[in-house]
Amino acid sequence: MTAHHPPAAAPVLVVGSVALDSVETPFGKVDEALGGSGTYFSSSASHFAPVQLVGVVGEDYPVAQLAPLAARGVDLGGLEQAAGSSFRWRGRYRHDLNSAETLETHLGVFSSFRPKIPDAFRAAPFVFLANIDPRLQLQVLDQVERPRLVACDTMNFWIESRRPELLELLGRVDLVTLNDGEARQLTERANLVQAARWILDRGPRFVLIKKGEHGAFMFTRDSIFFAPAYPLESVFDPTGAGDSFAGGFIGYLAATGDLSERGMRRAVVVGSAMGSFAVERFSNARLMEVTRADIDARIREFRQLVAFDLELDGDVPAGDAA
Amino acid sequence: MTAHHPPAAAPVLVVGSVALDSVETPFGKVDEALGGSGTYFSSSASHFAPVQLVGVVGEDYPVAQLAPLAARGVDLGGLEQAAGSSFRWRGRYRHDLNSAETLETHLGVFSSFRPKIPDAFRAAPFVFLANIDPRLQLQVLDQVERPRLVACDTMNFWIESRRPELLELLGRVDLVTLNDGEARQLTERANLVQAARWILDRGPRFVLIKKGEHGAFMFTRDSIFFAPAYPLESVFDPTGAGDSFAGGFIGYLAATGDLSERGMRRAVVVGSAMGSFAVERFSNARLMEVTRADIDARIREFRQLVAFDLELDGDVPAGDAA
Repeated sequence: MTAHHPPAAAPVLVVGSVALDSVETPFGKVDEALGGSGTYFSSSASHFAPVQLVGVVGEDYPVAQLAPLAARGVDLGGLEQAAGSSFRWRGRYRHDLNSAETLETHLGVFSSFRPKIPDAFRAAPFVFLANIDPRLQLQVLDQVERPRLVACDTMNFWIESRRPELLELLGRVDLVTLNDGEARQLTERANLVQAARWILDRGPRFVLIKKGEHGAFMFTRDSIFFAPAYPLESVFDPTGAGDSFAGGFIGYLAATGDLSERGMRRAVVVGSAMGSFAVERFSNARLMEVTRADIDARIREFRQLVAFDLELDGDVPAGDAA
Repeated sequence: MTAHHPPAAAPVLVVGSVALDSVETPFGKVDEALGGSGTYFSSSASHFAPVQLVGVVGEDYPVAQLAPLAARGVDLGGLEQAAGSSFRWRGRYRHDLNSAETLETHLGVFSSFRPKIPDAFRAAPFVFLANIDPRLQLQVLDQVERPRLVACDTMNFWIESRRPELLELLGRVDLVTLNDGEARQLTERANLVQAARWILDRGPRFVLIKKGEHGAFMFTRDSIFFAPAYPLESVFDPTGAGDSFAGGFIGYLAATGDLSERGMRRAVVVGSAMGSFAVERFSNARLMEVTRADIDARIREFRQLVAFDLELDGDVPAGDAA
């Protein structure tokens, strides 16, 4: 099988976790399904661009189950298989689906992961450093050759335990993606506009603040863009939504090469669409089955969701003349 | 002084509280300032349409401070002054400004309020029943003559204590506005799309679900519209944001008379703009000082905030051919 991405798309390098997730939601449960930030990102990004995945799994990982990813153009040449057991996460979502309760985390081979970027991947113009130790994220940057766009994710654990390294990382990336709680924690600013400015002052040109079911903001020094989360009638399993968002976002940028404000805004909407698909089924099942027509239809729904025309010359009746 | 609203605008009747608020935020405090749902709504709506306010205050209310409202076209002919003390609320917002902590509520004359709609107000084509006892909201509807649009607000207290009356009210209004927590509580549905459908099934044609800093959804039987909250760098005092939103929303509808989907969407954006002004200063101070130019500029910023163009024929590179 050949890759489905357009021939013009630039490759995207992602370094992240490849895990086995056991998840329970009010709607069902799944055991040892494909999971991890690298898996979700790749599944999503592969709709738009060739993906180069770097990560580690244990001897017990069902590598054959990654074949559909390879068939979609995800190069698994950087996926190391190490002695030991795979990264496993077990979690549960309660009725409101807003936050995962972690029941068990087993790092396995992931605890001694040192990313080695294969020679063939070092020139990737788009790089996504998924949520791993900032020390490892920095190691990745030492191994790549001047990408056009480097984006990174992080989480509360690293903000607490690796603050100096994280600040160093901020000076070396173009885009940071993090959720609203993490942005507030990192910057010690409750106001998101102020938090975003704090981050922009430390290097990145773009800050993408994800608010889960409440949508996402993209901040630059001159602009703010907001994309709502798609109001799904049934969210099945929120796991992986953020990494799927990032995959659609960066994958789309790699496909278009358009890093203008206009292009970036479009990419946020594509990312939101991919995030909304991710939560409709367990694991990466929905991401792997959606078609281009599904994606286009969802993007049309996004446009409809926020569409208004309010001409200011005449439409709002003239009121206060002051 | 004459009213500033356009001559074509239809009058809006609002029944709600007129109170004295003492509020403390991280940025300052204010004592016994003008407050209450009726006051915020009127201050906001008066930018667009003539307002008829029905409420009650005690003998101690500084009625002279309402003169600027009257000067803006708010008819105070339905504001009863009763023997006793005025409705007072004292609250505090902590650092995150997300929820008010009520320190003291003194209902005073409001506890025995029975709305009496003056003859001159009974034909108002637009009616807003602010957050008061659903029994009183029903009494108002018994006194008005076939308005074009009746909207109501409510809160957790009434959802718990006046459920049968609230359900009766739902069958008699065109639009319900409530926050996301209240929508979930009323409908016992965690998912907002499902919650909105539950409410629509009970009578209203429109459900406006407010999510505070996370924006607002308007649901109809056939559509969903979302407007973000404007990402202010400094929110000074969140009190009254919801009623100011409602005032801009209904006032704009009264000014245009356009209840089409297009007109309703525009009204939501105008409401969002007015809600964003309300929180910039204590009490109704900012609402009273903003000009038409300020409002237009804020609406332009809203448009910029959500603007994207993503043509689907060609813009997204063709990927998965399935």
